[in-house]
Amino acid sequence: MSYNILAPEPNKIKTPPGVKINTEMNALVYHGPGSKAWEKKPKPSLLEATDALVKISKTTICGTDLHILKGDVPEVTDGRILGHEGVGIIEEVGSAVTAFKKGDRVLISCISSCGKCEYCKKGMYSHCEKGGWILGHLIDGTQAEYVRIPFADNSLYHIPEGADEEALVMLSDILPTAFECGVLNGQVKPGDTVAIIGAGPIGLAALITAQFYTPAEIIMVDIDDNRLEVAKNFGATLTINSNDENIIEKIMSHTGKKGVDVAIEAVGIPATFELCESIIGAGGHIANVGVHGKSVSLHLETLWSKNITITTRLVDTVTTPMLLKTVTSKKLDPAKLITHRFALKDIIAAYDTFQNAAKEKTLKVILTSE
Amino acid sequence: MSYNILAPEPNKIKTPPGVKINTEMNALVYHGPGSKAWEKKPKPSLLEATDALVKISKTTICGTDLHILKGDVPEVTDGRILGHEGVGIIEEVGSAVTAFKKGDRVLISCISSCGKCEYCKKGMYSHCEKGGWILGHLIDGTQAEYVRIPFADNSLYHIPEGADEEALVMLSDILPTAFECGVLNGQVKPGDTVAIIGAGPIGLAALITAQFYTPAEIIMVDIDDNRLEVAKNFGATLTINSNDENIIEKIMSHTGKKGVDVAIEAVGIPATFELCESIIGAGGHIANVGVHGKSVSLHLETLWSKNITITTRLVDTVTTPMLLKTVTSKKLDPAKLITHRFALKDIIAAYDTFQNAAKEKTLKVILTSE
Amino acid sequence: MSYNILAPEPNKIKTPPGVKINTEMNALVYHGPGSKAWEKKPKPSLLEATDALVKISKTTICGTDLHILKGDVPEVTDGRILGHEGVGIIEEVGSAVTAFKKGDRVLISCISSCGKCEYCKKGMYSHCEKGGWILGHLIDGTQAEYVRIPFADNSLYHIPEGADEEALVMLSDILPTAFECGVLNGQVKPGDTVAIIGAGPIGLAALITAQFYTPAEIIMVDIDDNRLEVAKNFGATLTINSNDENIIEKIMSHTGKKGVDVAIEAVGIPATFELCESIIGAGGHIANVGVHGKSVSLHLETLWSKNITITTRLVDTVTTPMLLKTVTSKKLDPAKLITHRFALKDIIAAYDTFQNAAKEKTLKVILTSE
Amino acid sequence: MSYNILAPEPNKIKTPPGVKINTEMNALVYHGPGSKAWEKKPKPSLLEATDALVKISKTTICGTDLHILKGDVPEVTDGRILGHEGVGIIEEVGSAVTAFKKGDRVLISCISSCGKCEYCKKGMYSHCEKGGWILGHLIDGTQAEYVRIPFADNSLYHIPEGADEEALVMLSDILPTAFECGVLNGQVKPGDTVAIIGAGPIGLAALITAQFYTPAEIIMVDIDDNRLEVAKNFGATLTINSNDENIIEKIMSHTGKKGVDVAIEAVGIPATFELCESIIGAGGHIANVGVHGKSVSLHLETLWSKNITITTRLVDTVTTPMLLKTVTSKKLDPAKLITHRFALKDIIAAYDTFQNAAKEKTLKVILTSE
Repeated sequence: MSYNILAPEPNKIKTPPGVKINTEMNALVYHGPGSKAWEKKPKPSLLEATDALVKISKTTICGTDLHILKGDVPEVTDGRILGHEGVGIIEEVGSAVTAFKKGDRVLISCISSCGKCEYCKKGMYSHCEKGGWILGHLIDGTQAEYVRIPFADNSLYHIPEGADEEALVMLSDILPTAFECGVLNGQVKPGDTVAIIGAGPIGLAALITAQFYTPAEIIMVDIDDNRLEVAKNFGATLTINSNDENIIEKIMSHTGKKGVDVAIEAVGIPATFELCESIIGAGGHIANVGVHGKSVSLHLETLWSKNITITTRLVDTVTTPMLLKTVTSKKLDPAKLITHRFALKDIIAAYDTFQNAAKEKTLKVILTSE
Repeated sequence: MSYNILAPEPNKIKTPPGVKINTEMNALVYHGPGSKAWEKKPKPSLLEATDALVKISKTTICGTDLHILKGDVPEVTDGRILGHEGVGIIEEVGSAVTAFKKGDRVLISCISSCGKCEYCKKGMYSHCEKGGWILGHLIDGTQAEYVRIPFADNSLYHIPEGADEEALVMLSDILPTAFECGVLNGQVKPGDTVAIIGAGPIGLAALITAQFYTPAEIIMVDIDDNRLEVAKNFGATLTINSNDENIIEKIMSHTGKKGVDVAIEAVGIPATFELCESIIGAGGHIANVGVHGKSVSLHLETLWSKNITITTRLVDTVTTPMLLKTVTSKKLDPAKLITHRFALKDIIAAYDTFQNAAKEKTLKVILTSE
Repeated sequence: MSYNILAPEPNKIKTPPGVKINTEMNALVYHGPGSKAWEKKPKPSLLEATDALVKISKTTICGTDLHILKGDVPEVTDGRILGHEGVGIIEEVGSAVTAFKKGDRVLISCISSCGKCEYCKKGMYSHCEKGGWILGHLIDGTQAEYVRIPFADNSLYHIPEGADEEALVMLSDILPTAFECGVLNGQVKPGDTVAIIGAGPIGLAALITAQFYTPAEIIMVDIDDNRLEVAKNFGATLTINSNDENIIEKIMSHTGKKGVDVAIEAVGIPATFELCESIIGAGGHIANVGVHGKSVSLHLETLWSKNITITTRLVDTVTTPMLLKTVTSKKLDPAKLITHRFALKDIIAAYDTFQNAAKEKTLKVILTSE
Repeated sequence: MSYNILAPEPNKIKTPPGVKINTEMNALVYHGPGSKAWEKKPKPSLLEATDALVKISKTTICGTDLHILKGDVPEVTDGRILGHEGVGIIEEVGSAVTAFKKGDRVLISCISSCGKCEYCKKGMYSHCEKGGWILGHLIDGTQAEYVRIPFADNSLYHIPEGADEEALVMLSDILPTAFECGVLNGQVKPGDTVAIIGAGPIGLAALITAQFYTPAEIIMVDIDDNRLEVAKNFGATLTINSNDENIIEKIMSHTGKKGVDVAIEAVGIPATFELCESIIGAGGHIANVGVHGKSVSLHLETLWSKNITITTRLVDTVTTPMLLKTVTSKKLDPAKLITHRFALKDIIAAYDTFQNAAKEKTLKVILTSE
């Protein structure tokens, strides 16, 4: 990703004397590893004809934001406004924006898509030559009162009338991520046995979207018994704590020694990926969703002859229109992933709650602007 | 694979006095690591109603046979007749065989398929519950004057009239292996850039079958300049010696920094698999064909977000009918893989030639019965 | 279909004197258009090594049986035992049958598959060179106390322990027909708008299996308001009586003028197929399930540029294992299609009830042997 | 298609006194059925920020242009400049165009794609809500010295250095049409038997692109023996004149009574479509390419059980990048479709030659600007 922006030079903006213009807003700003603040920032302006300016109504916090705060994502620099999820209202659009106008209620995609490059034309928006994941990463993000959205026509979605906006915040990132990287890439089919390793928000989103395809069994694995309990309520047919020494034997025995049809990795560490390798059946699919920081051992000495498929993917959000239809038609209820709600100005407290997920039993938090 | 056979007890076979029955034949017999002999063995008989007895006309030697001789395939035991490729003439069929009769000329598949189990019904003959790769492995094979073929109706193919039988020997294993595991799994498309790592017989077979789909570029990598020369003659558009220190840079530069669309691993060692990881483009496919003896490092720390697909497969020979059509219609000429010819009785010399492939410039050898 | 059988010559069967052998059974026999009888017939015997003899536990009546009785299927001749659906217990197996033994409880597929021919290898069992739909058609069928099943290993399925056998009778034909010809060929996806024309048993089976893929909307069209009411209970989101003059306008308006993503034709007459042509959206799929007696007008003058796909199919029953898994895991409840139950010996009454479907509100009937 | 343009009002354009501006050009203008002229027209200007103005280097004439001249396409109105194919040089771009600049050599797609609407995002550019086929149809086209191209970033392609521009003119329409509607929709596979009905330019383009997938046999049918001769030179393995009374028998016999795997209709009349229905094998694909003016009889009374697929499509030009790669890599030589060359100003003579295709043995003509 190599999105270059030329920041406007504020001191060149002429304000007529005697006129007070509100050019400030509040935002959650990253100040290097371990440091963040809810503070004043200039309100963003349109930079390109394809931009839109969106007033945030609701946003949320992602596991990736915690990674950034740990310093794991070095291209995020001091001063960056975080956040890549949210819904809002269009405040202003650039001259080339044709699908949206001031006042439209919109869902913001975590992936910006130019709609023109080789990758966008192939539906690989994640690899857009000028976009991809840039919000709250290479440009300022959504944990703020306002956000500038590049390539608005291809990166925003109209919110259907009567839709639950909280539920839709889950469609900015977590639902398409779990669905595209886990369920679609895993090729879940009716009657399948699916194992999902990790019952955090992403793993649970995989659990609920896997059910679009009516698998016979969904086995959830996690270290946190509370999350496994939630998984049962969300449709898991078997749950196993990953501390269980006999986890592989249990899964193999549960599948009549055949292994699972689909294994979805939703954690991002070698142990969980290698668990997928151990339980995958002949002809099966391992779909990686987790963000990995180091390499894993791929046991080709046993897997070379097992006719398996392993996939990786950064979410493309190419299924957002499909997911919107499933929400509108009440086939999907993403709101059940929301456990806590805060005012946007209390985002520091929301971060605390999100970071202490095990203790607070947090899945997703919703931050609402006033 | 768990195919159990009850060997006939020879001393219990009653031969009427005064009648001389030819119950012996010559065969290439494995006697433990490093040891093999061309020697007398009992001529095989039908054991099941679904068996056929085939008189071998032509056979060949596979890289896997060399692995067995090194002791790398421990389930092959002393006394086993090697070989899993060949063409021949039906000598006798069991009562349940309906598609073949005495005198039919047949192509022998390296994979035996029962046609009934869950895996066979899914086209995964390699995982057949009673078959799979058993010839020259768990039961006696084709490097002999006669061979018993289980599940004959699903494991033999009629040889079309006028067909070049030498060419068809290449369809027992090497062509479907390269095509299914490499080309089909790699999803080669018109206009693609394909890299094939390894220009041995399998890699070259991938090279010629990849051209079924008209890729724009095929880059071949091998350590042997002679094989790279052959690759050029067979259609490679770029060849690189794997000793070249700048191999990754060369391939990346050749693809405009994007990486290849398809990387086919046809060697079976960590270095070559990891080369595939280094050169694969976003959205690309790594298709493993090589037989691996140890695990490899999968660099998920870079690949997790690259939308790639990795596949493994033991050949299913499910495409043999398709390949037969391409040979019959002169779209595929597998005979060009044959470099040396021997009489079947000279198979020890043929093994020497095959083992000294670099020096002898050997690709595939043909052994013809008298 | 050209399955040739050599009927056993009964007068050549030697019965030892003084031994009474039960060689008779009761069966529903076709005697030409409009004529049928529940009468004595010889109990069938094994004719081929791949046959099984099954004692029928439960069977049902299909719309196709009514077609036969009208004389619409001329290859069915006087004396033929009807029926191609049912569950039962294995009484005897031929010498080449390996997957089943006496006493096994089995589901009978309406399609017999040899497992060896070109079509069976491609999963097109309906076009099996020696099988296909032959039961109750070219050979005697399942509306009898016993039935001979050719190619038993590939045409029967083990009944899982604890399964509801009545529900499984629906898996002989109606469920795989609706699922394969309608839902799979129609490529139903999450979020789709699907129209199903015809709410008879097949249309309703399409309705319940379409939900495997979580479409947003399922519009059911039928002439019978009772069936439309059933459709609503089974998950239809909109029902329209086909007598409604504005049916096309209503569907187009309901889809925002775009037309439906998938139209499933489950009647078999020109008017209903042409309705599908009128409501299909650009890029949509028309999946024909109905058995047609005459040609229809294909409006290429409007459809040529609409990027649509039309499919036809005779059920292959290739998805029976998948459907069995969905029933076992309680994701599919086919028993809800059953409205009436009879003793097998009362099959004439059952035919009456099935023929008067509108009046009797019949969907599927179950006939149980004593 | 509902592309609304507000034509500039020429008399409102102010020209500064004393400055001579070249606002005229020559173009081929439609004046109602049967009437056309090479005459002066105002040189087009940019109307939208996403437009480009292209100076035509080379263009051609399409069969569709002849349909328009017959009056078959009533939405084309008097005064319209015809033509939807060509290559040229960018003269000027609108402010929102980012991928092209003045002086770039470009290939013009016959389909304009906004890149933002639901259909464009699905790769169905033909159904673009603001584009689709509009050039030389709803807006002025390419048979002129200059043309305005809407949505330039998504509707133009850079011409690779050293490319043969004449060959590339074939990529504006005819190659992607034959490839997408015929070959891709027909799902041509290695070893297949393909029949192409119609050996005009589109049928021949299907013939050469079908070979991307290495079918075993390609049967070409046409009424013109010269075109069949050309087809043989281009790779047809069997040619049959459509006047042959035994055409169906010949094809069925040639396929061992099985019928063809793929039938491509490239004429557009009922007789040729119904020929496809008669020769299609079980499991086969009928891919319609022809533009039809009336409905055809679909013989569902025989086809309902044959597991066939019928597709229609207006070219989306989504494969243009793929086709460009095959041309650049010399895997495809579309120039062989060109039989005649003219100066652009002699376009009236070129139309004559193109209309008298049988007599003149015309396939495609190239018109070159001076």
